[in-house]
Amino acid sequence: MPTSNGEVLLHDRVANHVAALIEAGALRGGQRAPSVRKLSAQMKVSPATVVLGYSQLQARGLLEARPQSGHYVKTPPRAALAEPRATTAAAGSARVKLGDRVTGLYRSMRDPSIVPLGAACLSADLLPLTRLNQSAVVATRTSAGGGALYDPLPGNATLRTHIARRAVDHGASVRRDDVIVTSGAIEAIQLCLRAVAKPGDAVVVERPTYFGGLRLLEEIGLRAVEVPTHPAMGMDLDALESALVRHKAKACLTVPNFSNPLGTLMSDEAKAALVDIMSRRQVPLIESDVYGDLCHDENRPRSAKAFDRDGWVMSCSSFSKSLAPGYRVGWAIPGRFYDRVDELKFTYTGASAPLPQMTIADFLDSGGYDRHLRLLRRRISTQVSAGRDAIARHFPAGTRVSRPHGGFLLWVELPRGCVSAVQLQRRALARGISIAPGPIFAARDGFDNCFRLSCGYPWSDILDRAIATLGTLARGGPPSHGQTSVPGVQSS
Amino acid sequence: MPTSNGEVLLHDRVANHVAALIEAGALRGGQRAPSVRKLSAQMKVSPATVVLGYSQLQARGLLEARPQSGHYVKTPPRAALAEPRATTAAAGSARVKLGDRVTGLYRSMRDPSIVPLGAACLSADLLPLTRLNQSAVVATRTSAGGGALYDPLPGNATLRTHIARRAVDHGASVRRDDVIVTSGAIEAIQLCLRAVAKPGDAVVVERPTYFGGLRLLEEIGLRAVEVPTHPAMGMDLDALESALVRHKAKACLTVPNFSNPLGTLMSDEAKAALVDIMSRRQVPLIESDVYGDLCHDENRPRSAKAFDRDGWVMSCSSFSKSLAPGYRVGWAIPGRFYDRVDELKFTYTGASAPLPQMTIADFLDSGGYDRHLRLLRRRISTQVSAGRDAIARHFPAGTRVSRPHGGFLLWVELPRGCVSAVQLQRRALARGISIAPGPIFAARDGFDNCFRLSCGYPWSDILDRAIATLGTLARGGPPSHGQTSVPGVQSS
Repeated sequence: MPTSNGEVLLHDRVANHVAALIEAGALRGGQRAPSVRKLSAQMKVSPATVVLGYSQLQARGLLEARPQSGHYVKTPPRAALAEPRATTAAAGSARVKLGDRVTGLYRSMRDPSIVPLGAACLSADLLPLTRLNQSAVVATRTSAGGGALYDPLPGNATLRTHIARRAVDHGASVRRDDVIVTSGAIEAIQLCLRAVAKPGDAVVVERPTYFGGLRLLEEIGLRAVEVPTHPAMGMDLDALESALVRHKAKACLTVPNFSNPLGTLMSDEAKAALVDIMSRRQVPLIESDVYGDLCHDENRPRSAKAFDRDGWVMSCSSFSKSLAPGYRVGWAIPGRFYDRVDELKFTYTGASAPLPQMTIADFLDSGGYDRHLRLLRRRISTQVSAGRDAIARHFPAGTRVSRPHGGFLLWVELPRGCVSAVQLQRRALARGISIAPGPIFAARDGFDNCFRLSCGYPWSDILDRAIATLGTLARGGPPSHGQTSVPGVQSS
Repeated sequence: MPTSNGEVLLHDRVANHVAALIEAGALRGGQRAPSVRKLSAQMKVSPATVVLGYSQLQARGLLEARPQSGHYVKTPPRAALAEPRATTAAAGSARVKLGDRVTGLYRSMRDPSIVPLGAACLSADLLPLTRLNQSAVVATRTSAGGGALYDPLPGNATLRTHIARRAVDHGASVRRDDVIVTSGAIEAIQLCLRAVAKPGDAVVVERPTYFGGLRLLEEIGLRAVEVPTHPAMGMDLDALESALVRHKAKACLTVPNFSNPLGTLMSDEAKAALVDIMSRRQVPLIESDVYGDLCHDENRPRSAKAFDRDGWVMSCSSFSKSLAPGYRVGWAIPGRFYDRVDELKFTYTGASAPLPQMTIADFLDSGGYDRHLRLLRRRISTQVSAGRDAIARHFPAGTRVSRPHGGFLLWVELPRGCVSAVQLQRRALARGISIAPGPIFAARDGFDNCFRLSCGYPWSDILDRAIATLGTLARGGPPSHGQTSVPGVQSS
């Protein structure tokens, strides 16, 4: 299992370099990979590091070792995996009815013996727990009241200053007092929706979109207007604009950076055009930017908020996907709807607990978050590649998979002849594996040939076997490896 | 200022003993109090302790010292204060419209220079902050992930076991898995309301009742049916039953133990009758028991849940009023509506942060909470008596004040000729004092001759001067003491 020392990072770098050559077609199936000696000299790393990197690529199914000869690119290489198609959406608005299906999924997540390919959650191994615990102790000891006293809304001032500064770094114009701390991004999105829409109103969403957002629409009593979405480009903006007009939609809810489930990154031009449409129509844009920090390279994309001139963008995010899910620290930057969101937060749940906020503030003060992100980005990039490779090895020809440049989620589209996603989910769960089936990502029927696979865990044989089992089940066959569940995988 | 050593406890005990004699009429205005020597022998405490206790009673305006002669009961003694009258309520249901008024109040609470007589919040001096900080460090160091990982709903298992055991101690039949941890009691009440009622439905409430509950009805879009309430007995149960029938109410929201604002403690018989009505009518009873642990003696009253046989009682509470407001740890015990509340919690805010829960669990494990409660109960009892005494001294004749046997809130009813509560609030705020005006405790107009006064702070000259200022302002006069605000009182 990877640890956080330098050797592993070099080894990841070697693997990613060669994987990129294969992906780009510079190395093709059957070709010999650079020799250990040559790559060692070229990348200025030790031969042992190259050997480790090549072992990883063997485990990922990209290379095979031929005794006395070297390493060769396997056939078919990963480039054979096509990306999912652009989605379409029926006209009209729909009441969402996902309650039972989503509840079943999240209750299955409570079982620690399940291989957690269904939950959009990072492994504990990827989080800086020791450093966070140190920050928690510092926060407890240095603050008046140690977090036991009410912290007046809208939340810890130091933390809000950090959040505002980081938003400025990503191109937005945000001050500390524009930020309201919430219980995760989900509360932020909930309050933003309630602030601008009332039961019966229509809200525009991408299709497919995060089931948590759809469940909020369902419980609040909002109608969903789905717009077609392209995996590489994002929401169809013409369809968005006509939906706003036709349905008098009260908001648009979107994930512009590494969307859930498609992994789409909207370009800056597309974000600017999106914000322009919303401002012109005077309809609030609610963005969730929880995956923005999880870009696979160092180019952290801008949020939609960066293009906001008139306060119509309500930006929501959290540290739950990138640092400390259990701290439940999220925030809203609600623009012109600040007062209303502040009032609703006070009414529905009161202020958020100061202790987790103070802990994250201390961690940010120390520069720990940026160091953590640099490491995390490389790791999830490797994990996502490994997940794609495993799908290429184990799933039937014609399977399509998203190719995200951030986040840790894959969207898988099964070819004709496979079992439905809901059947796959049920059969997988019986074998101790959770996935998130396609239909829960849509307000109306659809995506029953799709599922979302989380790559939030360091790559391991357990995960490879689980994906092999999924591949067999998808074909309608019995699993080739039997029971794949290994208790304790969640902490592995 | 009192500290938590034994001497102060004895001194409080002396003061409470003599105050009780005065209240009961055993010592009347103008009579001489027992000599220091005599009371010292009788109560088996040092003469210095009696002197301290008598000083406190002088500060509370109950005794006066006459040189060379001893201590005498002042005229008029506190017994002259009558309790508020039973309330009445108009028939019919009403939409609640309190938003602006309540928002103004809670925003004024953010200013630490305000003398906080408006907020139902305990002073930091009354909380075991050092011990809680120790528990926070223990929790951080001993748990896997230190609270940074998602804790699956419905919350920390050890904490839920403690909550269930304590509920059993108070007569209820509750198991660990009946408990869902929430963000304070307010989220618990919110989720219970949403679980059983939808916008447009009617909900029965006491009149007057907590503005936080009324604000929830307003934001959720529920109609309030107010029933008359007696300060000593609680809700009029005949009126409740006919309201259930006439308005097809979907729930009744009540605070049976030391209600907010009246301080009413319903008897066990009344609670049994209340639960019987609700079960018979098959309408859920949502109780908030946040003040139950704050009885002024050691007889912790039973919750309505203790009388629940069929799961119609949805019990909500928290540690916010009694231990650590900032931890935001509350809970729901939703009876037959467990699954629905669990589902809504997941959808709206996700799981609650584990770190504050683990900290409280460790504190409970150590027995610290019961030790803390024993001390706290004596202290708030003393503070409430001091608050009543100050009102007797500084307010016009005919002022009525509640006489709660638990909690730390007083409900004050002004006689004819005084300014309105809303005027009083405005003028007091201009002088750095917050109060909670009567009208925000009702769904319909009323109580403009009433206000709620919090006694959550150790008695001090600052508080005495603030109440003197309120008394002068209530009469319509200018304040006799000028600006009473002293920066930093919130942490004093």
